[in-house]
Amino acid sequence: MNFIVIGGDAAGMSAASRAKRTMPDLNITVLEKTEDVSYSACGMPYNIADPHRNMDDLVVRHAKIFREKQGINLLTGHCAETIDRAAKTVSGRTSDGRGFQIPYNKLLIATGASPIMPHLPGFDLPGVLALKNLDDGRQIKSFLKNNAVRKVIIIGMGYIALEMCEALRVRGVDVDMVKPRPIFIPWMNTDMAQVVQKEVESNCIRLYPGHRPERIERSGSSLKLVCSDLTLEGDMVLVAVGVKPNSEIAANAGLEIGAGNAVSVDTKLCTSDKDIYAAGDCADAVHLVTGQKVWIPLALLANRAGWAVADNVCGKEVRLEGIVGTAVFKVFGLEVARTGLTSEEALKAGFDPAEMMIESQSRAHAHPGASPIWVQMVGDKKTGRLLGVQMLGREGAAHRINAAAVALHARLSVEQFAQTDMAYAPPFGPVWDPLLTAAIQLLKKM
Amino acid sequence: MNFIVIGGDAAGMSAASRAKRTMPDLNITVLEKTEDVSYSACGMPYNIADPHRNMDDLVVRHAKIFREKQGINLLTGHCAETIDRAAKTVSGRTSDGRGFQIPYNKLLIATGASPIMPHLPGFDLPGVLALKNLDDGRQIKSFLKNNAVRKVIIIGMGYIALEMCEALRVRGVDVDMVKPRPIFIPWMNTDMAQVVQKEVESNCIRLYPGHRPERIERSGSSLKLVCSDLTLEGDMVLVAVGVKPNSEIAANAGLEIGAGNAVSVDTKLCTSDKDIYAAGDCADAVHLVTGQKVWIPLALLANRAGWAVADNVCGKEVRLEGIVGTAVFKVFGLEVARTGLTSEEALKAGFDPAEMMIESQSRAHAHPGASPIWVQMVGDKKTGRLLGVQMLGREGAAHRINAAAVALHARLSVEQFAQTDMAYAPPFGPVWDPLLTAAIQLLKKM
Repeated sequence: MNFIVIGGDAAGMSAASRAKRTMPDLNITVLEKTEDVSYSACGMPYNIADPHRNMDDLVVRHAKIFREKQGINLLTGHCAETIDRAAKTVSGRTSDGRGFQIPYNKLLIATGASPIMPHLPGFDLPGVLALKNLDDGRQIKSFLKNNAVRKVIIIGMGYIALEMCEALRVRGVDVDMVKPRPIFIPWMNTDMAQVVQKEVESNCIRLYPGHRPERIERSGSSLKLVCSDLTLEGDMVLVAVGVKPNSEIAANAGLEIGAGNAVSVDTKLCTSDKDIYAAGDCADAVHLVTGQKVWIPLALLANRAGWAVADNVCGKEVRLEGIVGTAVFKVFGLEVARTGLTSEEALKAGFDPAEMMIESQSRAHAHPGASPIWVQMVGDKKTGRLLGVQMLGREGAAHRINAAAVALHARLSVEQFAQTDMAYAPPFGPVWDPLLTAAIQLLKKM
Repeated sequence: MNFIVIGGDAAGMSAASRAKRTMPDLNITVLEKTEDVSYSACGMPYNIADPHRNMDDLVVRHAKIFREKQGINLLTGHCAETIDRAAKTVSGRTSDGRGFQIPYNKLLIATGASPIMPHLPGFDLPGVLALKNLDDGRQIKSFLKNNAVRKVIIIGMGYIALEMCEALRVRGVDVDMVKPRPIFIPWMNTDMAQVVQKEVESNCIRLYPGHRPERIERSGSSLKLVCSDLTLEGDMVLVAVGVKPNSEIAANAGLEIGAGNAVSVDTKLCTSDKDIYAAGDCADAVHLVTGQKVWIPLALLANRAGWAVADNVCGKEVRLEGIVGTAVFKVFGLEVARTGLTSEEALKAGFDPAEMMIESQSRAHAHPGASPIWVQMVGDKKTGRLLGVQMLGREGAAHRINAAAVALHARLSVEQFAQTDMAYAPPFGPVWDPLLTAAIQLLKKM
């Protein structure tokens, strides 16, 4: 049996490896358009922060290992372009221009996502860069070095933008950040978002929310980003306004397209064609709080979905029930985490949300070194159900969020969550964990 | 209505405060035998570590506030001795020897627990101390200072013993630890316990498990602890072999005594007498994994149970379903956490346990500063249910445990837990959270 995988990153290589382990006789071919496979994409900002580290440190497993030790036919420099579902073939072109066509019995589309590049004048100038794959990372790193970059303009204020602003500051680079929407972190309680904003600004980043970029111009040896009412100058522009799923190849093959323009899959990761799977950043998923399809491209799901596809291809039925949208990032000294829905999202999904924001402490009463922890919690007034949590703090926010994520999976009510037996010791939190305090306070509004 | 509370620590003062807030007309009297109320007992080792900090820093709310601002009749220096259930009175003696008798309509027994003091020769010598209440802490602190203590022998190797050995090392005091049982941390996987042991020993603590103390003798200005085959010398002996519930007053009044010799209570915290409640370290609780009564004295339950008693006394029915035995402590650079059952406990409770220990990392692949994280996970082969987790690491163990605790409350299977959507970012863990890796590996044995 021929199992063809399009895309050699998290989902694709997870699927290929696991399928080969399970069924050593399987013919597995992976088509990867770049030369890089299996690397920690999320680690790129931290690698970029350190000029002495090689980008290849992020490679988890080298192509050679997949080919020689695992017996996977890994074809790098192979860009898949079309799927012929009737003939069951994938066609494409290699980086040196040769065409190829490969037959499949089972196919996995794991094409990932790409950074959104606005179609505006000057966004194709040298020094206007985005960060998605390892080559992007290498380009950014060599541009920073070769051009002795002193100042970068980042367009966007999402996870990657914020992680990158920190990475650049660590290298002593000045950073301006700009985006069209006037609100700094739209999914976060205003007071909490202000804490993040202050942290970023106190690290000498200048933030310009509410300014729509119009064009980029050359200005001597530097670049000028022109917005309607603001012009920023820098040596490099990093575009981090979001990503879009690479679902064209699926759409062109007539496969059903779902949430966020991603490939629609069922809980077995099967597309609308029973022999074609999709997994990772190009596929959608069920949000377990709303029951609705969503597109939230994150690394854990990509790996998990890759494994599930392998199992299904190998005849072991595995279903992924869904996600709850858990995410975390670090920006300077702050941990920012979320799971489930914000109040606004809950309202849109048809719930009757109550929300509560509390400020607690990262360590016990009178314990040295305590810092504030903020928790925003959302519950449904109709059913009592916990719907979402957002957290923020200098310590203790990143891992705490998982307790709420598990509660969302288990569909606990806020009352049940408030009753859970959480750990306490003075160095790690107050007697009442901040999550419990938030739940108790939220109950009063429900 | 007269609501009498025996004991002015976590459970007692939580109950008194909340009841007064809910029903301002309630006559509330708290009988506390010491002069201290409402303090962070768990903070004592950290306070003792710092000679410059006052023990009174740990007071959360002063007696004056309870009396003057909250209108609670708080009687310190009042030791309750007997409960007459027919006459509905509590009698006792004040610290200056006067007798008292107070009538109640509703009574809360919140007498806490006391350190176990072996009935062995020399355990009453000056310099042989235990740590439970604030006065114990003051005594230890002043003994350390006034006697320029250079060396302490700790009997016991539990949470408090380990927290205290660290506190003493921080002050530059030499520490020997000894206990009768030969196993260092009996509830922990051997490999993991060895990591803790090495950490303690690398901080110049000498550990002598497997030596039964027989007597303490004066030896010049120091003390000599004689075991069957070992003699240790020091300036002070700290006895930390465990605590026992202060349930005598309840037992003498004919109330039902339950698990661990604690006062037996139902989910409304009611004892076998409908007008008498018990809460905090003197009362038992339901373990939600086994469904059996247990006695696990911990601060969160004391506070939570105090509130629940207040609500029930004030006519709002509140039930505490139970606990899952979540606990955490810090010892030097390590975070040690547990929730639910060990494999041995699971077997005793009638489960068919499978267990798995994994070693993972605290940060992502190639992220600087990563350290190992160990997870031991126990599941039931018959039902697939998650039964317990023990964790250990330099970072990321303390708060992660709560995700497992919530899963135990929700009675998730190991398979369901393995599917949960946990947070990932390189500074905070690998893509597959150590808990997920443990669950996936455990599934293979189930």
